[in-house]
Amino acid sequence: MSNDITRLHTGSPENLTERFAHRASHMKASEIRALFAVASRPDIVSLAGGMPNLSALPMEMMSEVVAKLIVENGAEALQYGSGQGHPKLREQICDVMALEGIRAHPDDVVVTTGSQQALDLISRIFIDPGDVILVEAPSYVGALGTFQQYEAQVVHVAMDEHGLIPQALREAITTTRAAGRKIKFIYLIPNYQNPGGVLLPAERRTEILEIARTAGIFVIEDNPYGLLGFDRPSPNAMRAEDSENVIYLGSFSKTIAPGFRVGWALVPQSLKEKIVIASESSILCPSNFSQLAISSYLSDQPWRDQIASFTQLYKTRRDAMLDSLEKHFPKEATWTKPEGGFYVWVTLPPEIDTKAMMPKAIVAKVAYVPGTAFYADGFGSWSMRLSYCYPSPERIRDGIKSLGGVLKTEMQIRGLN
Amino acid sequence: MSNDITRLHTGSPENLTERFAHRASHMKASEIRALFAVASRPDIVSLAGGMPNLSALPMEMMSEVVAKLIVENGAEALQYGSGQGHPKLREQICDVMALEGIRAHPDDVVVTTGSQQALDLISRIFIDPGDVILVEAPSYVGALGTFQQYEAQVVHVAMDEHGLIPQALREAITTTRAAGRKIKFIYLIPNYQNPGGVLLPAERRTEILEIARTAGIFVIEDNPYGLLGFDRPSPNAMRAEDSENVIYLGSFSKTIAPGFRVGWALVPQSLKEKIVIASESSILCPSNFSQLAISSYLSDQPWRDQIASFTQLYKTRRDAMLDSLEKHFPKEATWTKPEGGFYVWVTLPPEIDTKAMMPKAIVAKVAYVPGTAFYADGFGSWSMRLSYCYPSPERIRDGIKSLGGVLKTEMQIRGLN
Repeated sequence: MSNDITRLHTGSPENLTERFAHRASHMKASEIRALFAVASRPDIVSLAGGMPNLSALPMEMMSEVVAKLIVENGAEALQYGSGQGHPKLREQICDVMALEGIRAHPDDVVVTTGSQQALDLISRIFIDPGDVILVEAPSYVGALGTFQQYEAQVVHVAMDEHGLIPQALREAITTTRAAGRKIKFIYLIPNYQNPGGVLLPAERRTEILEIARTAGIFVIEDNPYGLLGFDRPSPNAMRAEDSENVIYLGSFSKTIAPGFRVGWALVPQSLKEKIVIASESSILCPSNFSQLAISSYLSDQPWRDQIASFTQLYKTRRDAMLDSLEKHFPKEATWTKPEGGFYVWVTLPPEIDTKAMMPKAIVAKVAYVPGTAFYADGFGSWSMRLSYCYPSPERIRDGIKSLGGVLKTEMQIRGLN
Repeated sequence: MSNDITRLHTGSPENLTERFAHRASHMKASEIRALFAVASRPDIVSLAGGMPNLSALPMEMMSEVVAKLIVENGAEALQYGSGQGHPKLREQICDVMALEGIRAHPDDVVVTTGSQQALDLISRIFIDPGDVILVEAPSYVGALGTFQQYEAQVVHVAMDEHGLIPQALREAITTTRAAGRKIKFIYLIPNYQNPGGVLLPAERRTEILEIARTAGIFVIEDNPYGLLGFDRPSPNAMRAEDSENVIYLGSFSKTIAPGFRVGWALVPQSLKEKIVIASESSILCPSNFSQLAISSYLSDQPWRDQIASFTQLYKTRRDAMLDSLEKHFPKEATWTKPEGGFYVWVTLPPEIDTKAMMPKAIVAKVAYVPGTAFYADGFGSWSMRLSYCYPSPERIRDGIKSLGGVLKTEMQIRGLN
């Protein structure tokens, strides 16, 4: 009988890559990826990564929280859990979201393996190949990658120092639809945007929600940094104003620690069952171990004070960065002035190619992310993202000084100053 | 300007469900799902779930392992990690796989959020809508669900008490291809199959690998139970014999604990980069917290002895189940005799509909999973999966006795005895 088969087919297995699905052609490494290997060398000041600084987190305390959890409730913490996430943690997540004006029911919260998984599940549920997703210009590289893997077309909408420009959104909707394309949703990071570092003011939030509702398009509000405002709380979340047309994504990665991989989606009731089923197919259930570690921490520890410590730590670093940018960057450069979060976005003269300049920066022992990483369309070559979250203020000053030197040389070469 | 939009579109947002992608129509709750809510009631003897029994796991020890990890290495354990998984854990995974004859390099291991995530990523990379996946008849419900979400057509291939029948595989390949369908891969659980409970002998493994190679089809070997053989070690993994044409999936859920959500894929070199990129898009990175907890446990604790304790615990329960099946089930029923793992598969006269019978079993305080859950094609109505992993031997005996009573009544009603 095996003759039947050998007659029909070649004797040796083909290469696996020849059998990839069509969508696999969209699975490409981001520009950031190769960079991180270099940027993580200890002699380099990395202003590239978005790793939270955990030095403010008392490890003895975290150790005790987790040890107690396993002794007292190990049979649950180490077992499979619910696909939607642990009920107690979902209640606590509602308390966390209340700080940004959100009134929500734990039934509408779906816990995910970081909010990245929520982005993946939403993409899976909504994106047909060719659908358009509207995003800020620039936007989070991890969201762009996921939308593209699901074969969406990403369309960027202009921002200014106050975030997404409502009028630009109106025009993008009109233009996209006039071209016969289907807009699936708008993806936004209203607080201390990644990579822009800007804050969307309350009035714009209202206006954008109104535009979206009128156009029959829903909004994905991605909010990992909302509690990290330096001098005042962020405006209420967009979800606080519209519970039907906004899917809200939250995360403990920046307010507690990313190693737990615990994020969540707060979704309209009509989406809940579908996203749970998609998540079960993807991972069965989020980790009880991680979820209950966070739940115990939220129950027993002064987590609001902890967030205040993180905020203070990042504010000091933001100050160091803005101060040294002022001192060391060429006068032709401009940058955003973040009031929270992790990032500064620098815009240079269009003649400067930040990607081509990277090797020179590495030689000068400093790393950043070239602006093109945050665009799906090749734009951004004369901009860069600088992160102040991880290095010490001294290292930030050293790094900006070195980078300023590289930039000035680059401008001289091009006769720009 | 907002008039432009209101003129073009309706004023109120449509229901989100109207905007789902085409693939969302394939995201359906499994039959098991609704069942588990009932089966988890404490008065019900649940022979339905596949939850490992963690009573053999010393929680004091696990607590100390994790506490020490966070005090000594919290800055890494609570931080983002590598998309491919932690290098040290990937080395240790190679040591674990060596117990089943696999020689592998840590570079070829990709750590996932449970092996379910590996199934999801592989489906994403390989399955185009309409592709055929060959699976055992019956097969793991979670795999069937994932393949279907990616719009594959699942074709079942007959098993007997020694697992997949090679001749049936040959015929399925010939028939499927004669019908003009494209076979993407073969998905198998060679050890103590879920739900069949059967073991694929070494000769059949070799024969099936040969059939697959000859036909130019690759094999996914899913092996969560391989180290849980009761009286002797399982035969070498199929991956031990063929490193080019087998994607191997492993998991710590049954040998340590499922709450960590740590599994892995061992993949041919040509697939490695693609699966890492797909995983990064899906979850950024697996949890360092979970990975390093497992890594510390493997480094510092007698994990082989711990697996032996688990095995002993499951063997006692298997014995209780087989013994009471013999005593209490009608003579017309037949069942598999597992030499390891968690499950017994029961076949009844075709007149018995195990799904329709479930409410009667619940009244008798016992739950199982109806056979149809493990088929993509509606087959299996006169079979059921019984799990002996979780309840105590006494509860298993009580449950089987009750279920035997329900069955005998059912057979009398239908004039079958």
